[in-house]
Amino acid sequence: MPRHFEQAPGLHDSVVPETEGYVFNQTMLRIKDPERSMDFYTRVMGMRLVRKLDFPEMKFTLYFLAYLDERQAQMVPADDGHRTTFIFGREAMLELTHNWGTEGDDDFRYHNGNDEPQGFGHIGVAVPDVYAACERFEKLGVDFVKRPDDGKMKGLAFIKDPDGYWIEILQPNMMEKQRKEG
Amino acid sequence: MPRHFEQAPGLHDSVVPETEGYVFNQTMLRIKDPERSMDFYTRVMGMRLVRKLDFPEMKFTLYFLAYLDERQAQMVPADDGHRTTFIFGREAMLELTHNWGTEGDDDFRYHNGNDEPQGFGHIGVAVPDVYAACERFEKLGVDFVKRPDDGKMKGLAFIKDPDGYWIEILQPNMMEKQRKEG
Repeated sequence: MPRHFEQAPGLHDSVVPETEGYVFNQTMLRIKDPERSMDFYTRVMGMRLVRKLDFPEMKFTLYFLAYLDERQAQMVPADDGHRTTFIFGREAMLELTHNWGTEGDDDFRYHNGNDEPQGFGHIGVAVPDVYAACERFEKLGVDFVKRPDDGKMKGLAFIKDPDGYWIEILQPNMMEKQRKEG
Repeated sequence: MPRHFEQAPGLHDSVVPETEGYVFNQTMLRIKDPERSMDFYTRVMGMRLVRKLDFPEMKFTLYFLAYLDERQAQMVPADDGHRTTFIFGREAMLELTHNWGTEGDDDFRYHNGNDEPQGFGHIGVAVPDVYAACERFEKLGVDFVKRPDDGKMKGLAFIKDPDGYWIEILQPNMMEKQRKEG
């Protein structure tokens, strides 16, 4: 079986045994105000804070969040050291970095990568029902970049987190449909 | 059981039933040259291209990459539509966006979020042996931001992808150790 499921220039088709066991573990975003971000990511988005690491000498704190169902949550180690190993070995961790003091600076803001200069685009969260999810976000006062039926691509939304980072809200089984009709 | 494993201001402790089934699906980065990025992510990093979506009217292409072991790879749907649903439902997809034409523009480059203005920091890949991984990256000519033993934090590296985005290379069972000694 070839390694890839599509053709594209540059693809390396042979197995790369040296990379066996590699895991796409984390995505890191800097945040201005952790209280605001914790509220958003745990209350609005429903994630769990799995580990918090303080680095007082360097004046920053790292917050590691994830989606965990009850079964997964019960497998999270209670011991701090073991839980550190756990969060760095797992897929799909969101790491939020807070450099102390930025929350009190009215003029301070981070760059979301979609305004110029562009680079990073967004993170994306799959939901069972994109319309129900967005109706709830609307009620909770979340900022939208694109509501599900705005523009050509129907059934696909973008919201903003408290720092202005974009979060795509998508329903997996609607993506092929909106693409064909887009 | 409380929902979180740490204390922090802003945390929402009640279960949020409306977010049941939410999945942290993707992280999107814009890339200048897909051939260069496919080579890097599939040959150097060992990821697989699972889906490629072309949008000719809007002149862009999306590349969806993931780490899949053989067992997982065999569960990927062969049918294009089903595979689209698959990539949007799964954790830890890397989505690379190519706006057509940038690859031929010598002056064009994306912003990595670590130079000013800051925002997005990095993606991170967990590896079984950080020193072996970095020795191999070195041989392959990969650019390093930080080699594993540079600075205070030992056993933890940052490399650059072809667009200059940072990738943390970490070994899960060394993170608590380097932290204590950091």
